[in-house]
Amino acid sequence: MLKVALVQQSCSADAAANQAESERQVRFAAARGARLVVLQELHSGLYFCQTEATHQFDLAEPLDGPTRQRFEALAQELDIVLVISIFEKRATGLYHNTALVMDAGNGCAGFYRKMHIPDDPGFYEKFYFTPGDAGGELNGFRPIQTRVGKLGLLVCWDQWYPEAARLMALAGADMLIYPTAIGWNPDDDEAEKQRQLGAWQIVQRGHAVANGLPVIVPNRTGRELSTDGETIDFWGHSFVAGPQGEILAEAPADEAATLLVDVDLKRSEDVRRIWPFLRDRRVDAYQNIVRRFID
Amino acid sequence: MLKVALVQQSCSADAAANQAESERQVRFAAARGARLVVLQELHSGLYFCQTEATHQFDLAEPLDGPTRQRFEALAQELDIVLVISIFEKRATGLYHNTALVMDAGNGCAGFYRKMHIPDDPGFYEKFYFTPGDAGGELNGFRPIQTRVGKLGLLVCWDQWYPEAARLMALAGADMLIYPTAIGWNPDDDEAEKQRQLGAWQIVQRGHAVANGLPVIVPNRTGRELSTDGETIDFWGHSFVAGPQGEILAEAPADEAATLLVDVDLKRSEDVRRIWPFLRDRRVDAYQNIVRRFID
Repeated sequence: MLKVALVQQSCSADAAANQAESERQVRFAAARGARLVVLQELHSGLYFCQTEATHQFDLAEPLDGPTRQRFEALAQELDIVLVISIFEKRATGLYHNTALVMDAGNGCAGFYRKMHIPDDPGFYEKFYFTPGDAGGELNGFRPIQTRVGKLGLLVCWDQWYPEAARLMALAGADMLIYPTAIGWNPDDDEAEKQRQLGAWQIVQRGHAVANGLPVIVPNRTGRELSTDGETIDFWGHSFVAGPQGEILAEAPADEAATLLVDVDLKRSEDVRRIWPFLRDRRVDAYQNIVRRFID
Repeated sequence: MLKVALVQQSCSADAAANQAESERQVRFAAARGARLVVLQELHSGLYFCQTEATHQFDLAEPLDGPTRQRFEALAQELDIVLVISIFEKRATGLYHNTALVMDAGNGCAGFYRKMHIPDDPGFYEKFYFTPGDAGGELNGFRPIQTRVGKLGLLVCWDQWYPEAARLMALAGADMLIYPTAIGWNPDDDEAEKQRQLGAWQIVQRGHAVANGLPVIVPNRTGRELSTDGETIDFWGHSFVAGPQGEILAEAPADEAATLLVDVDLKRSEDVRRIWPFLRDRRVDAYQNIVRRFID
């Protein structure tokens, strides 16, 4: 049994305050026995991708910057595995949306640079983030080994892509993790909002089923307004699903919450025995997956 | 708007009676305006794969056998598109689990030979069915063009594989269709039964979301006992989901039902605009999908 914590936060423009609140929740979770704590996507600030503005590149920091240093020390002090998320400056003019894993005692166990980058009204991520590398030793879809297992760490928009989940599973991931910042457009009607929230959970629970793995998803909450009038109501609903897609814990939409949940990692062994999907994959017939479209 | 019907049946060993009941339900649906009717997997008989017995190969028939002829004539008479399922004898000692599409006026528009074949206690399909072909013009994952759209026709166990759904979508499918025969082992407890049923729906609703397509799933109902004491309670719950994974119609577990549901095929256009997942696929980073495992 692995006790996991997900921190669902509402953020302000005050990075110091946001990080202090994250730290408070991490300490709360660790004190209750959490051995793996996962923060939401870009938890140090507002979701700045609501607008395209060059001055916001000032928010970025290198992989070994102050956010990593702060939370690396915290993970070590609390003796936990901690997943954080930063706006990474890799070089001048080259930025990523990057999640890092702190494994107490071993420092930073690895990082993941978001592979699928969205670009939609209010979510202008292609302006800010270069997609993660595809090949070589930086190849994106590699699980990160920690004391609590191999983490199939992905980020937000990746959650809509079955290929990403499958590649992590094939590389031996013990669980899938998606730090997220997703929300509603307040102009949408209630039925559309519920379909979107439902779709978001269903597709990730589907990855759990298809791969026989638990899925861990912390999401942002709260309303954020951009300088040019865009509004996002981040929909919370952070959740954990087991390897049959069953919901193990779920947060509300509109308030901060730290979820604590026991995840039985041995359950994947049982589920993959009764449903041995990996046995029957038609690897001889999937080659067109690498095509953009078959036309 | 496309009116779709799904026929959820309880079968006996009497093929003539099963087919007569299928025909009755197809006529019922067509009379109420259905333009696409989908029968469940292997609807002409009991689910014979509960045991391995060579004499059961007598149940098979060629692609252009009597079942196809009967339902081809029915589709023509009723002016509908009709999806049926047969135990196909392709050659002596070479059998498939095959679904066929009858497009009124055009006869048989195409067929699909089940690509992923299960083999689990009570579901000994690997004994009976050769997997569908991987390459060339018979390559399994090709949608079938009909007057109501391109059908991404797959069968049962395929439903657990995101690769199959994705390949159909990439090849231009307008909807995904899974004739199915799945059920409970009565020895499992109620919680496990509900997790299994949930997982089965979630993974397919996940394919709907990931691909922005409606999903149509007729399943068998009723208890079937094998000669060596195996029992399956086929769990029904035939359903249709829209392209955000939302349930549009659902049948009960334990009784025959013919579902009639209006599917808005234009909805995929809207959903793929707000969530343009196909735009952002990392086709440069998926090549390991064709590996059995990355070890």
